[in-house]
Amino acid sequence: MAQVKPSIPKGTRDFSPVEMAKRNYIFNTIRDVYGLYGYQQIETPSMENLSTLMGKYGEEGDKLLFKILDSGNFLADVKPEELQDGGTAKLAARICEKGLRYDLTVPFARFVVMHQNELAFPFKRYQIQPVWRADRPQKGRYREFFQCDADVVGSDSLLNEVELIQIIDEVFRRFGIRVAIKMNNRKILAGIAEVIGAPELLVDITVAIDKLDKIGLDNVNVELREKGLNEEQIAKLQPIIKLEGENRQKLTTIKQTLSASAVGMKGVEELEYILSKVEKLGGTDCQLDIDLTLARGLNYYTGAIFEVKALDVEMGSITGGGRYDNLTGVFGMPGMSGVGISFGADRIYDVLNQLNLYPTDALQSTQLLFVTFGEAEQDFCLPLLAALRKSGVRTEIYPDARAKMKKQMTYANAKQIPYVVIVGSDEVASGEVSLKNMITGEQVKVKADELVSKFYK
Amino acid sequence: MAQVKPSIPKGTRDFSPVEMAKRNYIFNTIRDVYGLYGYQQIETPSMENLSTLMGKYGEEGDKLLFKILDSGNFLADVKPEELQDGGTAKLAARICEKGLRYDLTVPFARFVVMHQNELAFPFKRYQIQPVWRADRPQKGRYREFFQCDADVVGSDSLLNEVELIQIIDEVFRRFGIRVAIKMNNRKILAGIAEVIGAPELLVDITVAIDKLDKIGLDNVNVELREKGLNEEQIAKLQPIIKLEGENRQKLTTIKQTLSASAVGMKGVEELEYILSKVEKLGGTDCQLDIDLTLARGLNYYTGAIFEVKALDVEMGSITGGGRYDNLTGVFGMPGMSGVGISFGADRIYDVLNQLNLYPTDALQSTQLLFVTFGEAEQDFCLPLLAALRKSGVRTEIYPDARAKMKKQMTYANAKQIPYVVIVGSDEVASGEVSLKNMITGEQVKVKADELVSKFYK
Repeated sequence: MAQVKPSIPKGTRDFSPVEMAKRNYIFNTIRDVYGLYGYQQIETPSMENLSTLMGKYGEEGDKLLFKILDSGNFLADVKPEELQDGGTAKLAARICEKGLRYDLTVPFARFVVMHQNELAFPFKRYQIQPVWRADRPQKGRYREFFQCDADVVGSDSLLNEVELIQIIDEVFRRFGIRVAIKMNNRKILAGIAEVIGAPELLVDITVAIDKLDKIGLDNVNVELREKGLNEEQIAKLQPIIKLEGENRQKLTTIKQTLSASAVGMKGVEELEYILSKVEKLGGTDCQLDIDLTLARGLNYYTGAIFEVKALDVEMGSITGGGRYDNLTGVFGMPGMSGVGISFGADRIYDVLNQLNLYPTDALQSTQLLFVTFGEAEQDFCLPLLAALRKSGVRTEIYPDARAKMKKQMTYANAKQIPYVVIVGSDEVASGEVSLKNMITGEQVKVKADELVSKFYK
Repeated sequence: MAQVKPSIPKGTRDFSPVEMAKRNYIFNTIRDVYGLYGYQQIETPSMENLSTLMGKYGEEGDKLLFKILDSGNFLADVKPEELQDGGTAKLAARICEKGLRYDLTVPFARFVVMHQNELAFPFKRYQIQPVWRADRPQKGRYREFFQCDADVVGSDSLLNEVELIQIIDEVFRRFGIRVAIKMNNRKILAGIAEVIGAPELLVDITVAIDKLDKIGLDNVNVELREKGLNEEQIAKLQPIIKLEGENRQKLTTIKQTLSASAVGMKGVEELEYILSKVEKLGGTDCQLDIDLTLARGLNYYTGAIFEVKALDVEMGSITGGGRYDNLTGVFGMPGMSGVGISFGADRIYDVLNQLNLYPTDALQSTQLLFVTFGEAEQDFCLPLLAALRKSGVRTEIYPDARAKMKKQMTYANAKQIPYVVIVGSDEVASGEVSLKNMITGEQVKVKADELVSKFYK
């Protein structure tokens, strides 16, 4: 076995105990809220058959799939001319049957189709698992990262959209992150395209409108002209571009503009339903804004579109989602409408770090360390540890009885253990131990058998 | 996009909501107990560089590694003659830089070496993550499965062994599984080999002794003779083969037999220390048996060896572990002694299933479903749901207001929701809802605003 200087693949990460505590806090918070709304957890295998994955993420996505080399003699069925063909994508498909999960949506669709007879519809599931993409790694972009998706399929009720907004609101309330939920509807975008008669320019239009704050109305109109819109079309768009005010006002303006489009008006109706239900529930803690420039997943979403931005940190979208009409069609199960959201755990992690919002409790591991000076003292302490642990207090004893006090205290500090119990021969004799608060430095004598009641909550 | 009949790779599994609830119960129980003893969680990437993994699991292990095909033009640096060479293992190494984690131990060693300057030693870590092996799938053996390891490195104190026994004891006490912890020590086995002068036959000897119950003493001796031991050697082994009684008695016999072997006597001393500390702590709930036939990880473990068997189910070992002297040497960091255990989550899952030991609480998802008959009723219910969720009650409303009652009740049953609130126009008018216990069928009227106090714990 040759010695290797160890490293990990680029774009991947180790998670230290502190990082894990923070991540668990995020995942547990999201998990708890999903659970409150009746979403149930599933997991799917890390590997899927490439036949399940290929063609679902566009040509670029196919390239970003991590493919797993077949076991054994993987060249057995490959002809020499295939090797010389140079077509590595084709050859890859010949020597790799499996690939790593690229997202949680396609595996979920595959799951629903495979297990359709065991599931209760509407099926509300959540899934928190890593996904892998052979993307070029860069700041904030990893080759292995977690997604936290919740979807409900088999129901076209807009109440699902309402509840997903409540879930987003509750999760960020618990995190203490101030956010705005931006909301749009694919049908409204379709209505705009219909009204101005230029569906092929829809993306250009939303991109241009999105620049209003930065470049001003005149320049937006210049850009629209450059993209090929004529004056009449641009005139029709003006109320949409200048859209302002409360959500109700915005809806009124949109209605006037899109009155000629049936699909556009359907989109307005959906937004109105969602807003009115949310209001009946006392509104949300966070801002809830209609934003027509929101155009994520245009060739995927068919109704509501959501996106969440943190208000106090410069950062891209930290949560997103929307409604789709045909999740499972590609696997032979048509007509399965659904709506879902996905929390961006890595970005939320960064936001919580930047705003220093992690609760101390969530990050603490060991609460109490016993520092001793010999085997007799260790023997004195062991039953105390057992009693504390029985009461749920996370307790350690420094294992090496010969270690110097300084070494043991350094260990306590490095692990950020808030309390230390110091036990020497005097303490054993008197039955009173020294309890030190490692943050304040305060040290008091405590009867050994009163330790549990001091820490038990 | 062609329609494909969906399937998953052989040896992998989907986990349904009920299976996930059971698995989470197992993982959370183990996690909580690890935490009580000061073990902290880490995670490592699913992919490691193949240079980290290769050569660590023997030749067979190298073959069982899942290798990940390099992105892009993976044949760019491969010469035509390498392709014709037929040596697929060699070629695999040329076109794959990364592989999937095979266990948690090697990545942990790599982690310790890479992060040695950030860690507080002794470093107590636990890790609960999937591993992948290209093994032939069969009943109970999967290509993707979870390991739940705890290790402490940087301490040779036997107190660590004592605490790991306490951890095993506590975990199975919480599960309600009656187990026996079998304990051996590599040094005692070395002592036996030394005393009879046949170290190369050590494995044969332990295998033969292990058959005592099945084939009887005479046949064990016949087998030892066949394996090449002479009469003097067999005579010396008799007390070890017939080893009986309490652990103390066993230790006395072993001491007499191995008195001439320094290493053997060291092993006895270690076992004595561990047993005496465990006794001082009031012993264990589970059986704790010295078992010299326990010979797992012979070329790996250097001190204590542990194995756990369930008493009420026919099943292989459900937990194992031991001490090793040089975890990180292969990565250039010598002298790092450690000891660890690993819970076999999949087998524990099966044992809990067979003995029907899952607590009802752990498996329950939604506690309460609102069944309604129209939008007005839904509107009446929405604030009630919000209040219940605010109190931590996992609550759902059937999203489609037009759905028939039967459909909604079927949904409740399929999800095993224990309580249903039924709200029609009468209930809205009176402010009293019908609360139905889905298990007993009992149905009572409850004031809407008293629902929370009924469910809040």
